[in-house]
Amino acid sequence: MNSFGRIFRLSIFGESHGISVGVLIDGCPAGIETSVDDFMPYLNRRKAGKKGSTPRIEDDIPQIISGVFDGRTSGSPMLISFPNNNTRSSDYKEVKNTPRPGHSDFVAQKKYNGFNDYRGGGHFSGRLTLGIVAAGVMAKKIFPQLNIQAKLIEAGGQKDIDKAVDEALKSGDSIGGLIECKINNIPVGLGEPFFDKVESLIAHLIFAIPATKGLEFGSGFQSAKMTGSQHNDIIINKDGETKTNNAGGINGGITNGNELVFRVAIKPTSSIQKNQKSYDFNENKLKDLSVKGRHDACIAIRTPVIIESIAAIVLTDLLMIHRGIQNN
Amino acid sequence: MNSFGRIFRLSIFGESHGISVGVLIDGCPAGIETSVDDFMPYLNRRKAGKKGSTPRIEDDIPQIISGVFDGRTSGSPMLISFPNNNTRSSDYKEVKNTPRPGHSDFVAQKKYNGFNDYRGGGHFSGRLTLGIVAAGVMAKKIFPQLNIQAKLIEAGGQKDIDKAVDEALKSGDSIGGLIECKINNIPVGLGEPFFDKVESLIAHLIFAIPATKGLEFGSGFQSAKMTGSQHNDIIINKDGETKTNNAGGINGGITNGNELVFRVAIKPTSSIQKNQKSYDFNENKLKDLSVKGRHDACIAIRTPVIIESIAAIVLTDLLMIHRGIQNN
Amino acid sequence: MNSFGRIFRLSIFGESHGISVGVLIDGCPAGIETSVDDFMPYLNRRKAGKKGSTPRIEDDIPQIISGVFDGRTSGSPMLISFPNNNTRSSDYKEVKNTPRPGHSDFVAQKKYNGFNDYRGGGHFSGRLTLGIVAAGVMAKKIFPQLNIQAKLIEAGGQKDIDKAVDEALKSGDSIGGLIECKINNIPVGLGEPFFDKVESLIAHLIFAIPATKGLEFGSGFQSAKMTGSQHNDIIINKDGETKTNNAGGINGGITNGNELVFRVAIKPTSSIQKNQKSYDFNENKLKDLSVKGRHDACIAIRTPVIIESIAAIVLTDLLMIHRGIQNN
Amino acid sequence: MNSFGRIFRLSIFGESHGISVGVLIDGCPAGIETSVDDFMPYLNRRKAGKKGSTPRIEDDIPQIISGVFDGRTSGSPMLISFPNNNTRSSDYKEVKNTPRPGHSDFVAQKKYNGFNDYRGGGHFSGRLTLGIVAAGVMAKKIFPQLNIQAKLIEAGGQKDIDKAVDEALKSGDSIGGLIECKINNIPVGLGEPFFDKVESLIAHLIFAIPATKGLEFGSGFQSAKMTGSQHNDIIINKDGETKTNNAGGINGGITNGNELVFRVAIKPTSSIQKNQKSYDFNENKLKDLSVKGRHDACIAIRTPVIIESIAAIVLTDLLMIHRGIQNN
Repeated sequence: MNSFGRIFRLSIFGESHGISVGVLIDGCPAGIETSVDDFMPYLNRRKAGKKGSTPRIEDDIPQIISGVFDGRTSGSPMLISFPNNNTRSSDYKEVKNTPRPGHSDFVAQKKYNGFNDYRGGGHFSGRLTLGIVAAGVMAKKIFPQLNIQAKLIEAGGQKDIDKAVDEALKSGDSIGGLIECKINNIPVGLGEPFFDKVESLIAHLIFAIPATKGLEFGSGFQSAKMTGSQHNDIIINKDGETKTNNAGGINGGITNGNELVFRVAIKPTSSIQKNQKSYDFNENKLKDLSVKGRHDACIAIRTPVIIESIAAIVLTDLLMIHRGIQNN
Repeated sequence: MNSFGRIFRLSIFGESHGISVGVLIDGCPAGIETSVDDFMPYLNRRKAGKKGSTPRIEDDIPQIISGVFDGRTSGSPMLISFPNNNTRSSDYKEVKNTPRPGHSDFVAQKKYNGFNDYRGGGHFSGRLTLGIVAAGVMAKKIFPQLNIQAKLIEAGGQKDIDKAVDEALKSGDSIGGLIECKINNIPVGLGEPFFDKVESLIAHLIFAIPATKGLEFGSGFQSAKMTGSQHNDIIINKDGETKTNNAGGINGGITNGNELVFRVAIKPTSSIQKNQKSYDFNENKLKDLSVKGRHDACIAIRTPVIIESIAAIVLTDLLMIHRGIQNN
Repeated sequence: MNSFGRIFRLSIFGESHGISVGVLIDGCPAGIETSVDDFMPYLNRRKAGKKGSTPRIEDDIPQIISGVFDGRTSGSPMLISFPNNNTRSSDYKEVKNTPRPGHSDFVAQKKYNGFNDYRGGGHFSGRLTLGIVAAGVMAKKIFPQLNIQAKLIEAGGQKDIDKAVDEALKSGDSIGGLIECKINNIPVGLGEPFFDKVESLIAHLIFAIPATKGLEFGSGFQSAKMTGSQHNDIIINKDGETKTNNAGGINGGITNGNELVFRVAIKPTSSIQKNQKSYDFNENKLKDLSVKGRHDACIAIRTPVIIESIAAIVLTDLLMIHRGIQNN
Repeated sequence: MNSFGRIFRLSIFGESHGISVGVLIDGCPAGIETSVDDFMPYLNRRKAGKKGSTPRIEDDIPQIISGVFDGRTSGSPMLISFPNNNTRSSDYKEVKNTPRPGHSDFVAQKKYNGFNDYRGGGHFSGRLTLGIVAAGVMAKKIFPQLNIQAKLIEAGGQKDIDKAVDEALKSGDSIGGLIECKINNIPVGLGEPFFDKVESLIAHLIFAIPATKGLEFGSGFQSAKMTGSQHNDIIINKDGETKTNNAGGINGGITNGNELVFRVAIKPTSSIQKNQKSYDFNENKLKDLSVKGRHDACIAIRTPVIIESIAAIVLTDLLMIHRGIQNN
């Protein structure tokens, strides 16, 4: 469904080629200074216009419809909307009969009996992540002590990301990427077992982001190859600092005060200029397909700020739950 | 918090050395034949007693406290309880002052101001997964067409798992493992974007299981190194069957009818016989620690049935939501 | 918080004198014909402009921002917005220091540390019920067999409601009212004990509507004075039809197929032209207050369509849950 | 469904003639002293054995299965169970074919396709309220400043309740009752609009209690007959104290610091000794029915402690949400 969170809650709406996309945020404390300008640095990090990103460039200026009064949050729900201005829906007519490989076209048509808005992926578009970034901005305002940084550390299997993107552009193809997120200055004790462990909530949101295929915390997949004596992090002082950080800052689903570390695998954008084949449901046969529309060669370039937002959103909700229960 | 699911819902309770652990299941249809015997094959797969598993062996015979009448589900909530019979709590006295490396001892003590039940990990024990397996049994009864199989495909970095466990036992150490889960015979169209995508819900539960460090769907982390033309799965017939399955059976967070595939990285058990160091919070210094209690050399041996249960639980809830909305 | 419902879910946003108010609806099946015109008859029933209603008249034409494509629901969340055009915020400056009797001014200021949008009641305005009516329209489309009718059966203690309103207008005062809602053609079996009984969910929403002070089902408060032999409804045929309907169509929290009946008490509008007193928090003393702004003499005239919407919303969600679980 | 609450959450389970009934409580802070003795005074107020109450007398001694360690809450979920010892299930065989008037027998059979546990009402039994009382005890420990008192103020239409019960017993009939609940010492600012207003949450739980037919806050149904100038409560000092209390301590769904007042109408127990008629679904005709089993002549005598528990549960959850968000 379209909502996430227990106290600091978000609900997502919109379609790529509809009137707008956006987010409804519940649980913001009253009194937080909030202006459109506060959102721009984060939205700009997500924005197209970089090398390898789609030529569809939207303003992405948020409209704060509710929940802010006289420059501060008022305590009522915040509706933030991003109008879709630069759409070319005619690019998508073919999609109805011939679903694009790697996209949601086929499943959306089946699930919604053919009534889904297929233009630009509709509700499945990466454009929906604008709302996540906007909610992340509010989360960071509520929980400012967090120091969150996500970086693209590899693209198309290469560390030189510029070069990898150049190659992809040249070949009319797209490439995947690996993003690492590190969070410092987290209090010990956030996370609510059994089900609302820190990893569970981060994972829930990470896999809601289009194109994510993998997620690991701390030692991650490497841990499967390790022994306990290699893996165990030894506590070395009374703050709980550990010598190593295979745990990635979390034990038993609860933050342990060390750096929280996770990595996310992003698949290559499904839309590519290269010719592909797909099934034509009108003519019941495979046919050649050249995907129209305007797309990213490496969507992972624009993803780090979304990952950071997810971390902020989850930790803010967990902070509120924890202080709600324990009152400290 | 301790609940998960929207219609088919579970709530978890209990501590490793308390009276019992178990699960409260909501949303079971009435009229499903249910007996204790139905649970045993699944519980036995999770049970200790195999090579490399803990010498603490519990009966693990479920007590069905409510929700079943005359051998069938009655439509009211099912409480299933597993008494703890074979406990040796004296093993755990040291834990309070000297948290075991890799365990939740330190964070639990901080989060709960020292009032947590520390015996055998308390509520953080792997024993809590009994409830997940029990709920999985009910899910499989509700959605019997699903064909779900999880397997340990690697342990300690080796394919010969028997050998890997022998080596770990010999060295008084533990090893991690990699589990692959494959699900066939899934209808197209399960999954509820934006937030309740199939991957999001599976990930939420997977990371609630102690010792999980990584999760990937289909091509997973490999996708980060691929190009779009390599990664895109071509639809080859009108059922939506694809030539390759890099998507792992999911597009846009919705099942596409192909095999659903995911892999889970399990870290090595934190409790090992080998000597380790930890911080003594009484004496404020590092000290030698030999972890008492009875433990697994490779917990990943017992995990596949838990992974299968998670898949069944998530898909059953999504089935109910989908037919609730679309009435088909 | 700002969301309600399990599958058919609504989230409310906006303030009386902000940019707009509205609703975000989740869980609409795809393929339902939906146009702005469909909403107008219901919105017009709620609209001002009748005798005894506020001179602030808004167009109340819904903007369907998302979730509808080519004239039909697309299966993605529906955002419906109602712009606020006719505002006179200057009327409300005094409110900050001298809260209006009977209004939320005092509590909102305390709860939100003075940062609440106080203009026209802000998020507490009756204007927020527009979103409820809009969601009710969708619910009625999803569950069209329901026959729901709510009527104002008494105002200011009189059956002649026209006369009661005239008297109130003449005296510069306001009056309360009693609304009865009857629903026919409900299937047997809706309602999800223990907590999501039909009465519980209807009550939850009814008391979210500003100005509601009481709610009773079937025999209601009269039942407290009755004996069991008077009160028990005798089943007279195999459809479960009963001779009397003291139960109001519900047993054990579940619809029994008979007419569902409930009554709602609406208090008199708090804003009146007559002089009143209130506390001046600047000068720390009681002072005379003449409430500005434009208001209703009998808000209960506009409430029946809101009550009907609530019934439709609750029964639609319960229908979806029931068929999700029982698949029938 | 079987759960209620956002942070302080309860889930209910069990059937009247099953193994046990009880409650699973989530969100208890760690460190609260908790023993079986703490529950007994409240459970005894709900217990049978008074004049006019059922001859089925259960011990009603709670078993605390999880969540308490060394005499204090541990921060993990609390499972509290009440075994059913004194059952006579043979009394209920007739129910399957001939549903008892006023009971859930008919609807439960329809909803659950005949698989419901019909013995003593099964999951619909008033016995399920034991869990509510137990959760209320924990709520009162968490939020001890609340002063909550509910009283039966009228039974069968009479103020002399003793006399009313005597008459009912003599005639083999049952009577309804009216309960008033008053809560003092509540902080200003609890309640979360739009949907989680204080009245909405109290109403949700009140109508989950079997036999409740009506609920009103403050002036309640009387308000429908009043004018605004009569109804408005004038604030008389800077604490927000009001001259009158027609609001019942709540404005805009938020506590205003004055006494919170509500009244609940309880219908007469459906089971009576007097002969009645009901429909025989085997023979398809009306027949005489004498309800077996052991029952209350005035269930409202045992209800006040349940009402108090509901008030405590709701206000505790709202306190946690409020301090989670506003951090004050």
